[in-house]
Amino acid sequence: MKNAIVGQSGGPTSVINSSLAGVYEAAKSRGSEHVYGMCNGIQGFLEERYIDLSTVLKNSMDIELLKRTPSSFLGSCRYKLPAIEAEGAKEVYDRIMSLLDKLNIGYFFYIGGNDSMDTINKLAAYGKEIGSDIRFIGVPKTIDNDLTATDHTPGYGSAAKYIGVVMKEIIRDATVYGTKYVTIVEIMGRNAGWLTAAAALAKDEDCEGVDMICLPEVPFNVDRFVEKVRKMQENKKSIVIAVSEGVKLEDGRYVCELADDVHAVDAFGHKSLTGTARFLANTVARAMDTKTRCIELSTLQRCAAHLTSRTDITEAYQVGGAAVKAAFEGHTGEMVALKRISNAPYQCTTELHPISEIANLEKKVPLEWVNEDHTQMKQEFIDYALPLIQAELTPIYISGLPHHIYMPEN
Amino acid sequence: MKNAIVGQSGGPTSVINSSLAGVYEAAKSRGSEHVYGMCNGIQGFLEERYIDLSTVLKNSMDIELLKRTPSSFLGSCRYKLPAIEAEGAKEVYDRIMSLLDKLNIGYFFYIGGNDSMDTINKLAAYGKEIGSDIRFIGVPKTIDNDLTATDHTPGYGSAAKYIGVVMKEIIRDATVYGTKYVTIVEIMGRNAGWLTAAAALAKDEDCEGVDMICLPEVPFNVDRFVEKVRKMQENKKSIVIAVSEGVKLEDGRYVCELADDVHAVDAFGHKSLTGTARFLANTVARAMDTKTRCIELSTLQRCAAHLTSRTDITEAYQVGGAAVKAAFEGHTGEMVALKRISNAPYQCTTELHPISEIANLEKKVPLEWVNEDHTQMKQEFIDYALPLIQAELTPIYISGLPHHIYMPEN
Repeated sequence: MKNAIVGQSGGPTSVINSSLAGVYEAAKSRGSEHVYGMCNGIQGFLEERYIDLSTVLKNSMDIELLKRTPSSFLGSCRYKLPAIEAEGAKEVYDRIMSLLDKLNIGYFFYIGGNDSMDTINKLAAYGKEIGSDIRFIGVPKTIDNDLTATDHTPGYGSAAKYIGVVMKEIIRDATVYGTKYVTIVEIMGRNAGWLTAAAALAKDEDCEGVDMICLPEVPFNVDRFVEKVRKMQENKKSIVIAVSEGVKLEDGRYVCELADDVHAVDAFGHKSLTGTARFLANTVARAMDTKTRCIELSTLQRCAAHLTSRTDITEAYQVGGAAVKAAFEGHTGEMVALKRISNAPYQCTTELHPISEIANLEKKVPLEWVNEDHTQMKQEFIDYALPLIQAELTPIYISGLPHHIYMPEN
Repeated sequence: MKNAIVGQSGGPTSVINSSLAGVYEAAKSRGSEHVYGMCNGIQGFLEERYIDLSTVLKNSMDIELLKRTPSSFLGSCRYKLPAIEAEGAKEVYDRIMSLLDKLNIGYFFYIGGNDSMDTINKLAAYGKEIGSDIRFIGVPKTIDNDLTATDHTPGYGSAAKYIGVVMKEIIRDATVYGTKYVTIVEIMGRNAGWLTAAAALAKDEDCEGVDMICLPEVPFNVDRFVEKVRKMQENKKSIVIAVSEGVKLEDGRYVCELADDVHAVDAFGHKSLTGTARFLANTVARAMDTKTRCIELSTLQRCAAHLTSRTDITEAYQVGGAAVKAAFEGHTGEMVALKRISNAPYQCTTELHPISEIANLEKKVPLEWVNEDHTQMKQEFIDYALPLIQAELTPIYISGLPHHIYMPEN
């Protein structure tokens, strides 16, 4: 029986370790003697950094803690494999293949988003080219929910729940003095507004909801924005706005580029986006007689493991198990996707998609789900997102704090 | 039997409504026919804005929701009564007294921090001067924990728990890429570092803890700070630092004043402090070869009702009840304080203190509780703070989100 190896890649989610648990337990139960974990994804693996997972996951309590631990337990990377035909690429791929052979690997799992699926795509293609019998399967994760082919991505439900919960709390807090007040909350999501849209979940019989939602899918106009805020505040003193870090002007520049901070660019060419809410809050404060505040949810939306969706945790675990099943049944170059069967009652199953249909693509929020003046989500979005935030997984509190499992930095 | 009235003042906490519940239920059970709530504290009361609480708190489920609802249910204010001897002051005080007489008030409760206790102090003094038999009692609250006379303040335990929990999550998240990374987390607390110190609670067998804690009690030197970070990063790639929004240079200027943002001043002359972490993260990024990130916990640390300390909720309720008991037994011009009887097991009771000993004073973190190089809290602080974050009060989740109770803005 061949061994299995699993890696985590890209930005973490609150539930990415639940997928790791799913892969680990399924591969063990199907007979892999060793289930290895790559440290810091394919990048660390190239440096021969990996562990035998059974040396760190020793019992069922460790598995329970793993499901409740934020960040990527194995560490992550943002490493893009070279194109197979690129100069020097063969050396990289051959090195990976020989390391895999050395560990007697038959099954390779990579938990990640669209950039990470690119890794699976290339490895599967290279494996095919050289006639390797190793199966490469992608396990989806991303808080951004921007993967195609899957109804939603594990990680999104928990981030959406976190956003719904804290927006309710921020909305309550912002009314406290009964004074004119504009709160602008900055939410992650570079090009897809799924997370920002989740702010719409705050509205219910016990909460007036957010007053405006600004998605990156809709071109942003600063003057029109200020006018909308001014008009809203004529009828309501406390205005709370959810804005994506990635909102762009009609000319394609990010709004945060209007602020004067320096912006870095990462290995995938992504600009570091931050300061959108601060810029808009300052702009509103200058234009209107109101107090303003900007709040960046920052990394908390992807690491608030104390507040996850049990639906999400369960599905994250399931896609891990389904990936193992697929690999053991001979599939390769595919990603496990979630397929929604029905909304009421919510039912969801898994299916497989060729990874070439998924890698490097982004799924945006359909504009038909946004109202006419681009300030609110329609019921279609609520119907889509609400099932994903249902139920909770209670943290294991020790001495007042949720307990985690981790590998100390060497 | 005389009626009671209660107001909430100053910044909210996650548990300030639990004190409101405590006052309401105790006054009702002691026979007050009407328990009124001032809308937006004494400021709203001067505009004759108040409600009969029984019209909005209709059953025991409403009380349970009230305990779980963030922000001040009645609304708050930052209104300072004029000095009794000031010109025109008599008119303000006589107006308050006549409104209280009109409602047949015998008991007046004000839930707040040191600024709010100033209100109780003045009203009690004025009441004594004119021979009023209304009893004025203060109910402590503040996330800042800076009230004297009381072992700690209701609201602190939940904010400290929130900070401990999210610091653990941020620490995990920040190690994810295994790369050089400095995360600077900005925590509330203008002059007292109790909340920032709570970051020390993150350290446990499952968490390496924060690498540095910067309290406002310790003069801050930017160059020394950068040097410390540089040295720390020689041994550990991911450095997480908790810094108070109120850290000051030796010359008394706030560190955030070194950034170029505009800073407003509120009615009490407090500067709006923000941008400390951003300034420090930018400074470190310029000085060193490392990625940096700043995270402002912002209002979430005072409104994260989904994550409260049950110890805190219970004590917040108790001080409300103890205030009613004191007033009905004839006390006035006093504040209920928490008195710790023992640490192991943790036991705490209430006592009364003359409010003149409390109003406008600030309790700082003892410097003996900080280590020699001013980077970590000593065990004395942990022993003090750990009992205050114990146990949880489960939110009442409806459709995936914690349910609240609120009065819609008119």
